Amino acid sequence: MVEEDGFRRPLRVLVWGENKQDQEEEVRQVYPLTMHETIAAALRRLLGERARVETATLQEPEHGLPPARVAEIDVLLWWGHVAHNMIADEVVDRLQHRVQQGMGLIVLHSGHLSKIFRRLMGTNCHLRWREGGDREILWPVMPDHPILRGISRPIVLSRHEMYGEPFNVPAPESLLFISNFSGGEVIRSGMCWTRGQGRIFYFSPGHETHPVYHHPAIQRVLANAVQWCAPRCPPVTLEESPQCPEGWFEQDAD
Amino acid sequence: MVEEDGFRRPLRVLVWGENKQDQEEEVRQVYPLTMHETIAAALRRLLGERARVETATLQEPEHGLPPARVAEIDVLLWWGHVAHNMIADEVVDRLQHRVQQGMGLIVLHSGHLSKIFRRLMGTNCHLRWREGGDREILWPVMPDHPILRGISRPIVLSRHEMYGEPFNVPAPESLLFISNFSGGEVIRSGMCWTRGQGRIFYFSPGHETHPVYHHPAIQRVLANAVQWCAPRCPPVTLEESPQCPEGWFEQDAD
Amino acid sequence: MVEEDGFRRPLRVLVWGENKQDQEEEVRQVYPLTMHETIAAALRRLLGERARVETATLQEPEHGLPPARVAEIDVLLWWGHVAHNMIADEVVDRLQHRVQQGMGLIVLHSGHLSKIFRRLMGTNCHLRWREGGDREILWPVMPDHPILRGISRPIVLSRHEMYGEPFNVPAPESLLFISNFSGGEVIRSGMCWTRGQGRIFYFSPGHETHPVYHHPAIQRVLANAVQWCAPRCPPVTLEESPQCPEGWFEQDAD
Amino acid sequence: MVEEDGFRRPLRVLVWGENKQDQEEEVRQVYPLTMHETIAAALRRLLGERARVETATLQEPEHGLPPARVAEIDVLLWWGHVAHNMIADEVVDRLQHRVQQGMGLIVLHSGHLSKIFRRLMGTNCHLRWREGGDREILWPVMPDHPILRGISRPIVLSRHEMYGEPFNVPAPESLLFISNFSGGEVIRSGMCWTRGQGRIFYFSPGHETHPVYHHPAIQRVLANAVQWCAPRCPPVTLEESPQCPEGWFEQDAD
Repeated sequence: MVEEDGFRRPLRVLVWGENKQDQEEEVRQVYPLTMHETIAAALRRLLGERARVETATLQEPEHGLPPARVAEIDVLLWWGHVAHNMIADEVVDRLQHRVQQGMGLIVLHSGHLSKIFRRLMGTNCHLRWREGGDREILWPVMPDHPILRGISRPIVLSRHEMYGEPFNVPAPESLLFISNFSGGEVIRSGMCWTRGQGRIFYFSPGHETHPVYHHPAIQRVLANAVQWCAPRCPPVTLEESPQCPEGWFEQDAD
Repeated sequence: MVEEDGFRRPLRVLVWGENKQDQEEEVRQVYPLTMHETIAAALRRLLGERARVETATLQEPEHGLPPARVAEIDVLLWWGHVAHNMIADEVVDRLQHRVQQGMGLIVLHSGHLSKIFRRLMGTNCHLRWREGGDREILWPVMPDHPILRGISRPIVLSRHEMYGEPFNVPAPESLLFISNFSGGEVIRSGMCWTRGQGRIFYFSPGHETHPVYHHPAIQRVLANAVQWCAPRCPPVTLEESPQCPEGWFEQDAD
Repeated sequence: MVEEDGFRRPLRVLVWGENKQDQEEEVRQVYPLTMHETIAAALRRLLGERARVETATLQEPEHGLPPARVAEIDVLLWWGHVAHNMIADEVVDRLQHRVQQGMGLIVLHSGHLSKIFRRLMGTNCHLRWREGGDREILWPVMPDHPILRGISRPIVLSRHEMYGEPFNVPAPESLLFISNFSGGEVIRSGMCWTRGQGRIFYFSPGHETHPVYHHPAIQRVLANAVQWCAPRCPPVTLEESPQCPEGWFEQDAD
Repeated sequence: MVEEDGFRRPLRVLVWGENKQDQEEEVRQVYPLTMHETIAAALRRLLGERARVETATLQEPEHGLPPARVAEIDVLLWWGHVAHNMIADEVVDRLQHRVQQGMGLIVLHSGHLSKIFRRLMGTNCHLRWREGGDREILWPVMPDHPILRGISRPIVLSRHEMYGEPFNVPAPESLLFISNFSGGEVIRSGMCWTRGQGRIFYFSPGHETHPVYHHPAIQRVLANAVQWCAPRCPPVTLEESPQCPEGWFEQDAD
């Protein structure tokens, strides 16, 4: 819920899906509804009246992200993989601007190479990877962080794609999860940053051929993250660099 | 000095100047040599054989930053103000890529709104400002940081442009200086970040009509910063996301 | 409010006062009720049913901090100045332990030299100071942080004691306020750290002879800080180092 | 090397060993010279004339750490396990004070529960553990950090004690290594903090029955860490809180 003008309204959440591999047979067997609809359904169930959850996809006009809609998003979840370069730069500009104003952004799995994530990080965001039979265990490093609420134990994914260090992102403000892969690698699998007023959470699980988004603990983390990433107050970050006459901060005191 | 292939070579330093206001009469009286040449001369004097210092300007082909030259820069200093938008995006791409590989970047004063700085920060980098008669005092917050070597006291600028908070940048990894303005404002005036292997230092002094770059303590900070921002080792940051077969880290062990 | 066992209960807040200078005539004129009672009254008014606010002082048995009471504190505010060394080490141990478990701690003004704050910081916490006629202006650096909710402008204290950098504390996790003093100094005047599950906020205003705690914006910051410092979840931080047999995390899975 | 009074002198390094388990048969087979002498020999070999390396043990008067000696240490390495409580508090005070002044401190393995480390962290520093047959792989997270110079690959320890998250320490300023254990756990195995002017490095490898300190890459990390932790400049951190008359920073300008 967001407090605004004295009353509380549900969070406006948008789950964005690239929606390409979702159409492949191998993925449809795991996610008959597509990944974004699976995530959206989980959020609706877990957040109930606290959120109004919608979805959008690459194939819609302006990728389902026209200005009027973007202006109203409180928290955006982003899953993309094979079509990062198809995202129009002006849509990326729009999203980056909204993050400055306070829109929360949750970047999932292969979204680490998305344009919007690389824009906000300032790095190339590369990492090591291997598709295979690794068991991944996600260990809570900050067990009392709001995003880990209700997650009292490590999360075990019996099979998942390996994503490994070094992961070229700026040092996070909070490191929430570290993953152990049975093949021997590790990755910082849950990390938080702030850009302007916007809170960003990167969460590495979610390969398209594994049923990760059906896992109750993964769903719980996403629902917690939506609430943590939600805007705290109306936009106050400077949109321009104002010229301030001497004593301005006293002259217009309330 | 940089150690490379078993021997030490001087740091390759480039001072980049926008070189537009430098041609105005008011600025020429303060900086007859231009700002970038004034800074370069100070660095040559303070660093001696430890560095080979060159300059480049907006007016040169590719802004003096062709690929072969950028590939050889160890530390780049950047002063720009009124022509940020004239910088070609492909040159910004080139600089950003070099920072990932380890090139140091020192962003000066109004360079806070430069394309390269905003790219690396992921924010709009706005702040408050006022041209006028403020006295600025820069207070060391981490007095033992290498960039403050030899700076045992606050740096007093008897007149300087005011730059004030909130300054919309990601929280720095190290906060070195905080400034007090006689008009009542403050700013985080010296901050460090890392992006990939590259070290970034933002230093707020340097308005074009005040003799800031003639001040011995300011010159000392810049010379220290050049040494601190220098690459530590050959590029090791991932340029792509490599696929790693199981056990790769043991198979090719030395 | 704290959620516990499925229902919400008010936050248990304790304002601790050294209560020595509060008895001096000069201070009584500013704070007829004492400083701690003034702060407590403000919190009761601003937090209403969300908190149950009590006070304790140095002069009570065990300084008003016996084990059973400490075990029930959600957020402790601490004002001390001339009697830091009179605090029993075992009481400090008790407070430090509760912070690990999640108790919030708000350290006020001269409490920067208190035993509990130095324990949690690991440094000597010294800074520069001057009693005099300085005007202090506190600038919000993270204007959207929950502790700054409702604080849209700099806070002006027309006269206050100067506290200046360098302030020997570990780099904060969040820097909320920077102060400008008319005498020329600056200080990081609002900072946050985490120790174990406990959130710590240091807030520098509050010299005993100035009416700082009557200022509406200062009271608002304190009320916000109480809510931000409140425990997020039951204690989960390790109290001992457990020996874990192989596979333990799978065997007792829910 | 340290620059001092215009000339360079070797770093004064002290390797402190608890020297109790070192006398047990099982440990003597792995470390015939004791652990601290093994580490000291490696540092002498790797650092050569850049350092003068000595050792001290618990059994010496004042644990080998009398005031005059402590005053001269540039970097202290600490290995302790079963006798943390035998360290006199006044020696811990002495070490903590020297860290404020700039002494580097490298805490090894089970030293995570030493008095000096807990003092500097402000937390209880607990973690999970298991003695057994785990393979530990240490992954570089910041591959260009000076402490990782020459470490281009993950470090594989074929058998080592498991130390696992959550590790109750304050969030590090730099996270250098993350370990993967074959049993499934992870730990942040190399971390840096600053307290006052002192640099602190915690490095988790080093169980007494495994030949960890004979491993070339582990020795290289320790030698790098000694150089990174070395004091940068003479002590400038405030030892007391000085009263500063108005304008003091201008009156005594050089």
